[in-house]
Amino acid sequence: MTSHVALVSRALGCQKIYMTYLDDSISKTVNDINKRWGGKDQFEIEYVTDWKKLVASWKKNGGLVVHLTMYGINVNDMLPKIDIKRKILVVVGASKVPREVYTMANFNIAIGHQPHSEISALAIFLDRLSNGTELKKIFKDAKINIIPSKDGKNIRIS
Amino acid sequence: MTSHVALVSRALGCQKIYMTYLDDSISKTVNDINKRWGGKDQFEIEYVTDWKKLVASWKKNGGLVVHLTMYGINVNDMLPKIDIKRKILVVVGASKVPREVYTMANFNIAIGHQPHSEISALAIFLDRLSNGTELKKIFKDAKINIIPSKDGKNIRIS
Repeated sequence: MTSHVALVSRALGCQKIYMTYLDDSISKTVNDINKRWGGKDQFEIEYVTDWKKLVASWKKNGGLVVHLTMYGINVNDMLPKIDIKRKILVVVGASKVPREVYTMANFNIAIGHQPHSEISALAIFLDRLSNGTELKKIFKDAKINIIPSKDGKNIRIS
Repeated sequence: MTSHVALVSRALGCQKIYMTYLDDSISKTVNDINKRWGGKDQFEIEYVTDWKKLVASWKKNGGLVVHLTMYGINVNDMLPKIDIKRKILVVVGASKVPREVYTMANFNIAIGHQPHSEISALAIFLDRLSNGTELKKIFKDAKINIIPSKDGKNIRIS
């Protein structure tokens, strides 16, 4: 699950993922992908021991904190209120998100009010936020590049 | 993984998920969600033994088959070409998608050309296809309803 959250973040234009626990398999996945598909200077993982400190300093430095939760206000209503010129920290979690996240976040936003997953919620939010432009993102230093194809697989390896 | 594909399908407005293998845990997840969150007449699972027959008859009956693959044409370029008045079968798979899927599909569409996951690809595609409207979807016969909240959890149980 968390590996997919990391890959969605990378593919949809985030610069970093902060994680509150160490997981070598996720670092390995991201490093492998960055090595083959590019982006080792564009996307990284950072482990944080104190998420509250991160959130507080993010806000203090002028950034916005957006928590994705099905209990929040619908993204269709909230998206126009997000100032995309500010640095945005998106918080996603499994079912046990601490209560303080809801009060510390600038916005609690629902990617719909039905259960699905943090992977899909993050994907839709990032796609909406970037107005689709990140899906054309190019990574520097990629060894593998896909050449879009109507009906097959076409890759360029360098 | 497949449970999440099913939940994304349900939350983003699909009527049915076809699966090529039996998995009781997924049926159980979907039935549990439908029972509590509504939708037992709106979303279901069907097992198919012959996916080629399904795809062929879907097309024969006037439906469109869209395969999501990072090797395809970028969704930003393809979305305007999809006739949303037709019934759409979206095909997603893990890494080993049979070669025939690429040639049988009407469209091979890439939700970006970077590795992420079928959950996120499907989520973004369905959100784009419905122009965001499905995220306000209401399920009949729901026992749990979320009342959107700025900073907490507010549910109505009936």
